[in-house]
Amino acid sequence: MRTAYYEQLAGLGDHLAEMCGLAATSMERATQALLEADLTLAEQVIADHEHVTDLSRRVEEIALRLLALQQPVASDLRMVVGSIHIGADIDRMSALAVHVASISRLRHPDCALPGDVRASFAEMGSRAVALARTAREVLQSRDPDKAGRLRDEDDAVDAEHRHLFTLLIDHKWQDGVCSAVDVALLGRYYERFADHAVEIGRRVVFEATGGLPLTKQMA
Amino acid sequence: MRTAYYEQLAGLGDHLAEMCGLAATSMERATQALLEADLTLAEQVIADHEHVTDLSRRVEEIALRLLALQQPVASDLRMVVGSIHIGADIDRMSALAVHVASISRLRHPDCALPGDVRASFAEMGSRAVALARTAREVLQSRDPDKAGRLRDEDDAVDAEHRHLFTLLIDHKWQDGVCSAVDVALLGRYYERFADHAVEIGRRVVFEATGGLPLTKQMA
Repeated sequence: MRTAYYEQLAGLGDHLAEMCGLAATSMERATQALLEADLTLAEQVIADHEHVTDLSRRVEEIALRLLALQQPVASDLRMVVGSIHIGADIDRMSALAVHVASISRLRHPDCALPGDVRASFAEMGSRAVALARTAREVLQSRDPDKAGRLRDEDDAVDAEHRHLFTLLIDHKWQDGVCSAVDVALLGRYYERFADHAVEIGRRVVFEATGGLPLTKQMA
Repeated sequence: MRTAYYEQLAGLGDHLAEMCGLAATSMERATQALLEADLTLAEQVIADHEHVTDLSRRVEEIALRLLALQQPVASDLRMVVGSIHIGADIDRMSALAVHVASISRLRHPDCALPGDVRASFAEMGSRAVALARTAREVLQSRDPDKAGRLRDEDDAVDAEHRHLFTLLIDHKWQDGVCSAVDVALLGRYYERFADHAVEIGRRVVFEATGGLPLTKQMA
C-alpha cells in the first residue's frame, strides 16, 4: 500500500514536470510561429494543447485518488494540494501559448508583428520559455531556493513587457491600430505565462516550508 | 467531531460565496469608475482586493485542515478540492477588477474609454457582474442546473467582446493607438472575469455529479 502511495506521489510530480516541459515547448513554437508567420507550427501548438489538458485531468484524478485512499498529511498533503494548483497553472500556460499561436494563424500569411517589436518578442519569448523550463526543473528537484529564484527571472519579462508598452504608447507608433491591439494582447499573454511559472515556484516553496511567499504584485 | 466537520464544510461554501459577492461588487465599482473616471472608486477597488486575497488564503487553510483531520471522501472530497479551485478563480476575478480600476486610475482625470465604446463596456460590465452574482448564488444553493446555465449567460459577454473587436479593427477607429490598447486589454479583463465565473459553475456541476463538463473553448 505504501509503495503504491509513494509511486503515486512521484507520479504526480512526473506528470507535472512533463506538462511543464510541453508548455515550454508550445510557447517556444508559438514564438517561432509568431516571428516567422509559420502557419503549420501555429496549428501544431493549437492541436498539442489537448494533450496538456488531458494530463491536467490525469493529475487531478491521481490527486483525488491519493486524498481519498491514502489520506496524506503534513508535507505530503501540501504536495498533493499544490499539484492541483500547479496543474491548473500549467494548463493555463499551454492555453496562453495557444492564444499566441491563434494570433499568428489569424494574421497569416502576414506576420502579426511589425518590425520594430520583433526583437522584443524574441526576447520575451525566450525568457518566458526559460522560466517554464526552470519551473520544470523545480518540479523535479523540489529545490525551494531555485523555486524562489523564478521570481527574479520574471523581472526581465516584466521589464520587456513595460518596454513594449512604451513603444505602443509612443506617438510615433506607425503600424496602425489593429497591429497595436495584437501587440498589446500578445504582450499580455507572455506576461501571464511567466506569472504562472512564478506561481509554480511559489507553490513549491510552500510545499517545502509550509509558508506561502507573498504573491508578486501583478501588472 | 462530525458537527465541527459539517460546520467547516459549510464554512468553506460561505467564505466562497462571500468572496464571490465581493468580486462582483468590485467589478461593478470598477466599471462605474471606468465609465465615470471616478478616481476614488477606482482606488477603493484596488484597496479592497486584499480582503478577497485574505479570504482566499483562509479557504485554503480550512480546506487543508479538513483534508488533514477529517479525511473527507466522495462528494465531500470533491467539494473540498473544488473549493480550492474556486477560491483561486474568485481571487483572480477580484484581480481582474483591480486591472480595470488601474487603467481608470492611470488615465484619470481623463476617461479611459472613448465615447463610441462606452455603451459596450456598460453592457459587458453589467453582464459580467450578473454572472458573478449568479455564481455566488450557485455557491450557496449548489444547484447544478443553475451552475450549468452560467455558460449560456457568458455567451452574451463573448458576443459583446467580439463586437468590441470589430469596432477596434474597423479602419474608422479615430481614437488613437493608446486608447485602442486600453480598450483591447479592458475587453480581455471582462472576458476573463466572466470565464472564471463560468469555471465556478463547471466545478459545482463536477461536485454534484462527479463528471466535469467540457471546458468552454476560450477566445
